[in-house]
Amino acid sequence: MNIQIRKATIHDMEDVRQLVIALAIYEKEPEAVIATTNDYKEAFKKGIFEVMVAVDGSKIIGMVLYYMTFSTWKGKCMYLEDFFVLPEYRKLGIGQQLFDAYLDATQRSGARMAKWQVLDWNESAHEFYRKNNAILETNWWNGKMHFNNT
Amino acid sequence: MNIQIRKATIHDMEDVRQLVIALAIYEKEPEAVIATTNDYKEAFKKGIFEVMVAVDGSKIIGMVLYYMTFSTWKGKCMYLEDFFVLPEYRKLGIGQQLFDAYLDATQRSGARMAKWQVLDWNESAHEFYRKNNAILETNWWNGKMHFNNT
Repeated sequence: MNIQIRKATIHDMEDVRQLVIALAIYEKEPEAVIATTNDYKEAFKKGIFEVMVAVDGSKIIGMVLYYMTFSTWKGKCMYLEDFFVLPEYRKLGIGQQLFDAYLDATQRSGARMAKWQVLDWNESAHEFYRKNNAILETNWWNGKMHFNNT
Repeated sequence: MNIQIRKATIHDMEDVRQLVIALAIYEKEPEAVIATTNDYKEAFKKGIFEVMVAVDGSKIIGMVLYYMTFSTWKGKCMYLEDFFVLPEYRKLGIGQQLFDAYLDATQRSGARMAKWQVLDWNESAHEFYRKNNAILETNWWNGKMHFNNT
């Protein structure tokens, strides 16, 4: 096995989306992914997000997707939206390599904060983030509204 | 009183930051605001965020600050980072006007989702969002790490 971490290109968007669907199944909401590969490509072209992928040969087996946001308290803040390694590639340190690549991108961007969310029941993820000396906060709720834009 | 809602310009960034500090006091963390007016101006110039302000004459008395993000499940998603009306201007519908301006910007951008966070103890905010038919989720934790970038 020869795992490499590299920046994703627009040609990787279909594979990245397939990993998102795999993650949605793990999070018990497979029907919730309505964004198309074209949505991914358009947003990627506009620079709305970036992705680092882990590849085994030519196969994408993990990814971390993030974008720049702005914390009114801290200033520039890199937000990790999605982070996944295929189950058969777990326990090899690939998640840590991807997370490190995200933290490195955060540092290089001049952001003062890295931020993300994790489900309350996902204890293995909590353990991973605690091992990385991250702060986990349980006192914020999410609000959201959906729109029927195509 | 003649309240108007308008898009903020770069010249409003100091006033916007002062409202953020007022909100941080309300959220019991006044020391937490380390972003400078210059940080605001630089990020605003780069298009990292947008702001709608409520003005009483020439005085900025409320604001909503938001930016485009990408939900891997839904596609483009407008994130509300900060939302505040000065206490002496509450109960006049100004918060609703600002929130509507944010939802309007979300709709016009083609985003499929509006998203934000609210503190678990802020019951008046919960009531406001429920009145707006928003979904409130309590099952996500926030993770974060700080960096010493200047």
